[in-house]
Amino acid sequence: MNNPVTVEVMRGDHVESRHRGLAVVVDGDGDVVFSAGDVEAGVFPRSACKAMQALPLVESGAADAYGFGNRELAIACASHNGEDAHVELAGAMLARAGRDESALECGAHWSSDQATLIHQARTIDKPNALHNNCSGKHAGFVCTCTHMGVDPKGYVGYDHPLQAEIRSVMESLTGAVLGHDNCGTDGCSIPTYAVPLVGLARGFARMGTGAGLEAGRAAASKRLMEACMAEPFYVAGTKRFCTELMEVAPGKIFAKTGAEGVFCAVLPEKGLSIAVKCDDGAKRGAEAMIAGLLARYFEPESTEREALLSMAQRPLINWNGIDVGAIRVTDALFV
Amino acid sequence: MNNPVTVEVMRGDHVESRHRGLAVVVDGDGDVVFSAGDVEAGVFPRSACKAMQALPLVESGAADAYGFGNRELAIACASHNGEDAHVELAGAMLARAGRDESALECGAHWSSDQATLIHQARTIDKPNALHNNCSGKHAGFVCTCTHMGVDPKGYVGYDHPLQAEIRSVMESLTGAVLGHDNCGTDGCSIPTYAVPLVGLARGFARMGTGAGLEAGRAAASKRLMEACMAEPFYVAGTKRFCTELMEVAPGKIFAKTGAEGVFCAVLPEKGLSIAVKCDDGAKRGAEAMIAGLLARYFEPESTEREALLSMAQRPLINWNGIDVGAIRVTDALFV
Repeated sequence: MNNPVTVEVMRGDHVESRHRGLAVVVDGDGDVVFSAGDVEAGVFPRSACKAMQALPLVESGAADAYGFGNRELAIACASHNGEDAHVELAGAMLARAGRDESALECGAHWSSDQATLIHQARTIDKPNALHNNCSGKHAGFVCTCTHMGVDPKGYVGYDHPLQAEIRSVMESLTGAVLGHDNCGTDGCSIPTYAVPLVGLARGFARMGTGAGLEAGRAAASKRLMEACMAEPFYVAGTKRFCTELMEVAPGKIFAKTGAEGVFCAVLPEKGLSIAVKCDDGAKRGAEAMIAGLLARYFEPESTEREALLSMAQRPLINWNGIDVGAIRVTDALFV
Repeated sequence: MNNPVTVEVMRGDHVESRHRGLAVVVDGDGDVVFSAGDVEAGVFPRSACKAMQALPLVESGAADAYGFGNRELAIACASHNGEDAHVELAGAMLARAGRDESALECGAHWSSDQATLIHQARTIDKPNALHNNCSGKHAGFVCTCTHMGVDPKGYVGYDHPLQAEIRSVMESLTGAVLGHDNCGTDGCSIPTYAVPLVGLARGFARMGTGAGLEAGRAAASKRLMEACMAEPFYVAGTKRFCTELMEVAPGKIFAKTGAEGVFCAVLPEKGLSIAVKCDDGAKRGAEAMIAGLLARYFEPESTEREALLSMAQRPLINWNGIDVGAIRVTDALFV
C-alpha cells in the first residue's frame, strides 16, 4: 500500500502536493527491468488497453473487409478529444458497416478538452455518441460484430460474444485471469478488469515484440501499434499527452493513457514496455511518470530525451503567464 | 509524510484509486479535537483563506463606503464559476470605486465549470479578468486600496501595502510567521503562504467565534462569514461544492475550498473549525473529506447529516447513467 512518491508538485521552492504510484518496465521476455511500488497489485487499465481490445477488429478480418487504414485503426485504439475530424472518422467507420451512431452504446459527453469544448458549444446543440472519447473504439466494436455476423446489440455487456472474445485476448496477453471477480464497468459501459500492473506491461511487451504470440496475433498487434504511431492525432488529439509522446519519436513510441492515472507505453525497437498507475488517479501524475520513464531509454542529450524530460518536469504557469512552480518526477523513478 | 488514506475511489467492489490527506478540527480555544496525518505540516491555503484576505475590505471601511451588502462581501471571499451574475457583480463593485476591469491584475480564464463554459463560449468572444474565478476578491482589493488612498497598481505584489496588511492579518489569525521563506505565488498572482494546517484551522476558528480577536476584527469576521452563508451562490456558483455545503444548513456552515485539495469550514454555532488538505491536490478528495468531517457534528439521522454524508460518499455515474462505483471517506476520518 505504501507506494513511493513518484511525482511532486512544486509551488516556488515548496512541495505543494505529492503523487504516489507504481511503475514497471518489462522486456520482450516479460522480465521486469525496473519497478517501483507494488506492481503485482490489481489495476483497472481502463482506456490504456484499448489497443488490446481492438485486436478482434483486425483478427476477425473486419478491418480489411471495410478497408480500414491507419487512421481508422488508430481511432479504434483512441480516447479522443471529440474534435471534428474524430467525430467524422468514427461516423465514417460505422457507415462502412452500414451502421450509424444509433448503434453505439457508449453514451454521449461534451469534450473534456477546453478548446474542443468551446468549439463544440459554438457549433452543435449537444453531443451525441460520436463525440464520446471512446467512439472510435465502439465503432470498431460494432464493425467487428457486423462483419462476424453477430448482432451488435448489447455489445457492451459482459456476456456478449465480443466481450468474451476481448476477455480471452486480454487473458492471453496479460497472463491474468479475467472474470466477474476482478470486473468493473468502465465509463463507456464495457467491462474493465483489474489486472496486475506487471501483467499489463507484459501484454503490451508481447504486442510490441510479437514474442510468444501466434503469427496472426503478432501481425495484428504490429499493425495496430504502427497505425497509432503513424496517426497519433487520432489516438487522442490536439495538445494531448498520448499524441505528443508519440510525436516526440515517430515510430519509436506507442503510448496510451487510461482514466484514473494509468499510462502504458511501448518502445518496439527496444523491446520494452512500460506501465504506470498513479495511486490517486491523477492524470498529471501518470503523465509525468510515463514521460520520465520513457526518457530513461533515449540517449543522454538526444532531442527525444530532452523532449521527454521537459514533459516529465514541466513548469506551472498561472493566469498571468508567470512561472509559479513545477510538476516533476522524483528519484523513485530514476534510481 | 505517510498521511493516512482518507478517501477511496471504488469501481464496483474494488478500490481503484486512493487519496491520502491530513485533517484537523479545532475548537474556539484553538484546541485540537480531532486530527489525522501531519497537521503541523505547511500547506498553501490558496483560495481557502479568501475570507481572511477580505478582512481589510471591511476593516478599512471600504465596504461601508461603497455600500457593499452580503453579495459583494460574499464574492470578495469567492472562487466563483464566472457565471453572468458573478461577472456583473464584480464589475459593479469596481464601478462603485470609480474603477473598471482594467484595474484587475488577476489575469483572465474561461470558466472551469462545464455548463458555464458552454454558456460563455456561446455568448462571449473570450473571457476578461472579470470572468476570473478570483475577480470578486480582486475587485475587493482594488476597492480597499482606492478607499484608503493607496494606488492599487501592483496590488498583487509582495511589497504592496495591501499584501503587507493581508500578511499581518493572516499572521495574527493563524499564529504562523509569513514571509519570503514560506511564500509562493498563487494562480491569480498574489502571494500565498504555506502555514501549518492546524494554524489555518485556528485562524478560521477565531473568525467564527471571535475568540481572542479585538472587537473590530471580530465584527468584520462575523460580517464576512455571515455574508457568505447568506449568499452561498456568490462564493462559488451553481452545483459547486462550497455553495452546496452552505445550502445544507443555512447559517450553520461556512465553507471555502482552495486549489490543490484544500478545504476549510466553520461551524460558528458549535465554535468549531475544520481544515483538510488532500496530499495529491485532488478536488474530489478534499470535498469528500470536508463533507465527511462536517457530518460528524450534526445529529445522527438529521437531514443535515444525511445530506453531508451523501456528499462524502457519492456514487460514480458513467456516460450512460449507470452506477459504476463510488467515492467514499475511510475510517481514518471517523475513528
